[in-house]
Amino acid sequence: MKRILVLGAGLSASSLLRYLIALVEKRAWELTIGNGDLEALHNTYGSHPQIRLRIVNAAEKQERRAIMEGMDLVISMLPASFHVAVAEDCIALKINLITPSYVSKEMRELDAQAKANGVTIMNETGVDPGIDHMSAMKVIHEIRRRVGVLKSFKSFCGGLIAPESDDNAWHYKFTWNPRNVVLAGQGGVAAFRQNKELKYIPYAQLFKRTERFEIDGFGAFDGYANRDSLKYLEVYGIDEVDTIYRGTLRRPHYCQGWDVLIELGLTDDSYILENSRLLTPRQLLNAFLPYHPKDSVEIKLKKFLRKDREHLYSLFEEIGFFDSSNLLCVEDSSPAFMLQALLQKSWILKETDKDMLVMIHEFEFEIGNKRFKTSASMVVIGEDRTYTAMSNTVGLPIGIIAKRMLDGYKDPGVKLPISEALYMPVLTELEELGITFTEITQEI
Amino acid sequence: MKRILVLGAGLSASSLLRYLIALVEKRAWELTIGNGDLEALHNTYGSHPQIRLRIVNAAEKQERRAIMEGMDLVISMLPASFHVAVAEDCIALKINLITPSYVSKEMRELDAQAKANGVTIMNETGVDPGIDHMSAMKVIHEIRRRVGVLKSFKSFCGGLIAPESDDNAWHYKFTWNPRNVVLAGQGGVAAFRQNKELKYIPYAQLFKRTERFEIDGFGAFDGYANRDSLKYLEVYGIDEVDTIYRGTLRRPHYCQGWDVLIELGLTDDSYILENSRLLTPRQLLNAFLPYHPKDSVEIKLKKFLRKDREHLYSLFEEIGFFDSSNLLCVEDSSPAFMLQALLQKSWILKETDKDMLVMIHEFEFEIGNKRFKTSASMVVIGEDRTYTAMSNTVGLPIGIIAKRMLDGYKDPGVKLPISEALYMPVLTELEELGITFTEITQEI
Repeated sequence: MKRILVLGAGLSASSLLRYLIALVEKRAWELTIGNGDLEALHNTYGSHPQIRLRIVNAAEKQERRAIMEGMDLVISMLPASFHVAVAEDCIALKINLITPSYVSKEMRELDAQAKANGVTIMNETGVDPGIDHMSAMKVIHEIRRRVGVLKSFKSFCGGLIAPESDDNAWHYKFTWNPRNVVLAGQGGVAAFRQNKELKYIPYAQLFKRTERFEIDGFGAFDGYANRDSLKYLEVYGIDEVDTIYRGTLRRPHYCQGWDVLIELGLTDDSYILENSRLLTPRQLLNAFLPYHPKDSVEIKLKKFLRKDREHLYSLFEEIGFFDSSNLLCVEDSSPAFMLQALLQKSWILKETDKDMLVMIHEFEFEIGNKRFKTSASMVVIGEDRTYTAMSNTVGLPIGIIAKRMLDGYKDPGVKLPISEALYMPVLTELEELGITFTEITQEI
Repeated sequence: MKRILVLGAGLSASSLLRYLIALVEKRAWELTIGNGDLEALHNTYGSHPQIRLRIVNAAEKQERRAIMEGMDLVISMLPASFHVAVAEDCIALKINLITPSYVSKEMRELDAQAKANGVTIMNETGVDPGIDHMSAMKVIHEIRRRVGVLKSFKSFCGGLIAPESDDNAWHYKFTWNPRNVVLAGQGGVAAFRQNKELKYIPYAQLFKRTERFEIDGFGAFDGYANRDSLKYLEVYGIDEVDTIYRGTLRRPHYCQGWDVLIELGLTDDSYILENSRLLTPRQLLNAFLPYHPKDSVEIKLKKFLRKDREHLYSLFEEIGFFDSSNLLCVEDSSPAFMLQALLQKSWILKETDKDMLVMIHEFEFEIGNKRFKTSASMVVIGEDRTYTAMSNTVGLPIGIIAKRMLDGYKDPGVKLPISEALYMPVLTELEELGITFTEITQEI
């Protein structure tokens, strides 16, 4: 009998819970879900004989540890800021832990303690980070086995809207935390290596300097650079490459349109607008357009766009920027928050909408004096608004890793899922669940 | 017999000290200069019978208060962060205080205490802030006396290079803290009111959305917006205006060129460049230009500039961006700090160079059904590298205000020099010292 504890069961945990419930049913194990409130959980899981629901204030160490006692595995789906405290608990109680989040500096510092107590703390186990690591390491290890030399690695991922639900000019709807989408690119400069040169892209250039990708049957995508691609040189052990470049995917037009919002200053979250509660979308836009004694807001925006970007005009019309009758009604708000309020009116998922998760890796490598390119791409369409592509691609790898760890996989310390012994069975089971990569290798 | 204490006597205090020495000589008063080290001061002032030099660690409350005891007036030329502590001392010891710096929130909170103890704390007494307040209030009060209604107020100021020393393509040299010049505009969004509309200019647009001014005999200037123009509505008591707009002056081309540096990301001070110590200016620039397999750095910059800005190319050539033989040799440096290191090689004042301080106010007001415009401009050329225009325009108003306060002017509380009883004699004496405004009023 194994006992699994999931801490934190928000909307994003739906696919993980479905997987774990099927698992504990099959194995006659037990699943405990600890959450701040149980109202929603009671309706769905309250009567299941193998599921125990426990209320827990994750900020209270005693409460956390009380609920962890006797568990064989903890999965923390709490906000990332809780993970270090939970990891300390797990080390003290000698329980293995899985988190979907990036390894923070503080988490990394627990490595020696985790090793000393024989505890495996497996991080970055969702989709990005998660599936990206596993699928990339698989190709990198294959190239090594063929005695190839990796020269270039590019990796892009995006949470988008499924083609059948794609009905706006931005080709985008919020399928994940809207605030993160609005503030994307503001966490630090984008740094990467391109043909041996260290390159930086400041925020003001980020959505201008995009790269175009195509996936058969799914059309074109534009990628913009993520913050720090360079750290993956060490994570993946590939410091020999001439090029490393990671980024985020959007559909064509999105990045051009978003770049205009950045230029206008509408994505700035660093200050509060005067009278934000009393601004219409039109007044909001006008506050960032140069003054003109006669021109309308429409004409001022057209001038701001310039000739070469005038085809983007409809994007701004569509999200309601010219509306002068409805207030946005947000008190003491930054421009970014006002923009988010506006976008949440038009980029909302309809009842029947499905999302789409896209990942693209491109590897270039040399074997002898021949150069090859391997493209690996994954496209996952959501089932509905509960079991979204995002929820499935985040939750299923976590669930599979949980199963492997309960079946005996261990690797004490603070780890990522980059060892072949872990990622191979995970990728294989993901394939069975419909999360597959299409790989094409050709000489170039 | 009056005793004056000047705390902090860096390079910028030269004109103030010259003025105060003449004053104490004439009145048989005594001047004490308190500084962290006295080496440079001993050579210049060591043998003067009316000057006492005292070493003081301004961070130590006991040391500060010991040196303040028995003074009739304190002038703090310390870094702005010290002013609140010095003001607390002055309130406790019941000594009047002058500072050249902006009134911080903490300083404003001392207002009631200062009033209770009958202590005048006069702030913003230099040029900008300082002369700007005094010269603007003079015109505003004149308009009020004529029962006019102020409709628009614009005010711009710049520390520049004198025409006779202007020998580079940017028409700029460092005449003040280079770091502040490099980081200009990054302290917060520019907010102002234009024809009743609230307007914001984000950093990425700041040096694009400039306004052109002309001064007879001195040619053209471009103004970019300062951070917060709106606070002057309250400071000057002019909330009725349709337009308020304050900014900084540069010569034509400077703002366009600087905007390119911003676009490239070279003014960013928020992160450390990898291997900054080993970068040449050429490598620094290349790190921010998009990769191209064949193009040189020169060609990549030309492409980045686009056709409409290609005339700016020589600006970048001139400051040595294509130099591939000399390292900038700055350890663990941000892009902004690397840029500063490069600019300090070419924007340095020569032995014989003179600086120039320019201030322009534009007022529009209505009397009856007639509308008028008053332009008031001040151009001050430095004497040499010690008594610069910057040092004179900062130091002389402080010195004159000191004299007025020692002669009996008082206005207990935390104040600015905006009352007629103070600014009129100051502006009159500044005129005698060659710091004059040219005023033109015409119907429009």
